[in-house]
Amino acid sequence: MLPVRRGTSMSDNIIYQPIGVIRSEHTRAAQTPIQPVFCEGCPGRAEVRPEYGAGLRDLEGFSHVYLIYHFHEAGKPRLVVKPFLQDVERGVFATRAPCRPNPIGLSIVRLVRREGNVLHLVGVDVLDGTPLLDIKPYIARFDRIEDARSGWQDKVDDATAQRRGRREFREDAQK
Amino acid sequence: MLPVRRGTSMSDNIIYQPIGVIRSEHTRAAQTPIQPVFCEGCPGRAEVRPEYGAGLRDLEGFSHVYLIYHFHEAGKPRLVVKPFLQDVERGVFATRAPCRPNPIGLSIVRLVRREGNVLHLVGVDVLDGTPLLDIKPYIARFDRIEDARSGWQDKVDDATAQRRGRREFREDAQK
Repeated sequence: MLPVRRGTSMSDNIIYQPIGVIRSEHTRAAQTPIQPVFCEGCPGRAEVRPEYGAGLRDLEGFSHVYLIYHFHEAGKPRLVVKPFLQDVERGVFATRAPCRPNPIGLSIVRLVRREGNVLHLVGVDVLDGTPLLDIKPYIARFDRIEDARSGWQDKVDDATAQRRGRREFREDAQK
Repeated sequence: MLPVRRGTSMSDNIIYQPIGVIRSEHTRAAQTPIQPVFCEGCPGRAEVRPEYGAGLRDLEGFSHVYLIYHFHEAGKPRLVVKPFLQDVERGVFATRAPCRPNPIGLSIVRLVRREGNVLHLVGVDVLDGTPLLDIKPYIARFDRIEDARSGWQDKVDDATAQRRGRREFREDAQK
C-alpha cells in the first residue's frame, strides 16, 4: 500500500522511505570513488523492493539512469568543504560532497540489464548498503547540456581528476 | 544549528527539511512545463534560507545547477503512468513524472547570478512555492553523457516533445 501525501509547508519535515538498496564493491566510504566517471568498470546493483517492481517497466530501454540516494554515512553537515579534487575550500552546494544539509546523493550510472526488481549497473560510485530513494531515466534531450561551464571544476585538469577522484580505491585494489 | 545524523537502516524513515523554496511564474501544476528544455525563457529563483547561504559560495562559476526538490503537489504515487510526451503507459521510474513513491524532482536550470542567498535562474519548470531540498553544480565531466540511449523518449520526435512538454503553458500565456 503506497502512502498518500499532501501539500508541504516550508517548516514541515519531508519524510521519505527507501525504495530499495544499492549494492556495490565499496564497503568503506574512504575508498569509494567520488563519481561514476572515476570507477567506470565498477559493477553494482539497485535492489528495489518487490512492491515497487512494476515501476521499473520500460527502464531497460535507457542506457543510463540517475540514482538518487541517502548518504547514510555522511556525518555532520558542513557548509564549506574542501572537495576531493582540489585543496581549496568551497561552498558545499558548489560541490558534490556528501556532508550537505540534506545528504542526498546523485549518480548517473550505466544500466546493463534488469532482472525483475533488480537493476544491474556499471559505474557505481556508491557505498554498499546505501538507501535508494528514487531512480530516473537519463534523457539526453533534457540532461545533456552542451554549453555547460563548470566553475572551479574546469580548473582541475583531467589527469588530476582521475588520480584524486578514485581516492584510495585503485591503490587498494592492487594490494 | 545544523542537525547531526547517523546511519540509516532500510526500514527507517529518512527525514529532510527544506533548505529553501523555489519561486517561479508557474502557479498551477497543470500549466507548468514538464522540463527546463520546454521553458527556456522562464525565470525563477531559488531562495535559500539565510543560515545556509555560506554553502552557496563558488556556485556562480557554474552555468547550470541541479535543483532537487519535493513535488509537494504530486498526489498519490502510481507505479505505472502515461507520460506527458506519449500516450503509452510506462513504469514510473522510466519517466520523470511527479507521482513517484518518493516524490523527488530533479531539474537542470541555468544560473544567471547569485545575490546573497538567492539564486536567479532561467529555465525553471518548477511550481512556485516548491520546497527545495538540495542544489548541486552541473559538472560536464560527470554529467554530460555523450552516448546515452533514451529508451521510449528516443521515439518522441522533437516537434512533438516541444508541443506536449509545455502543457498549456504557451497557449495560456497568449490569452
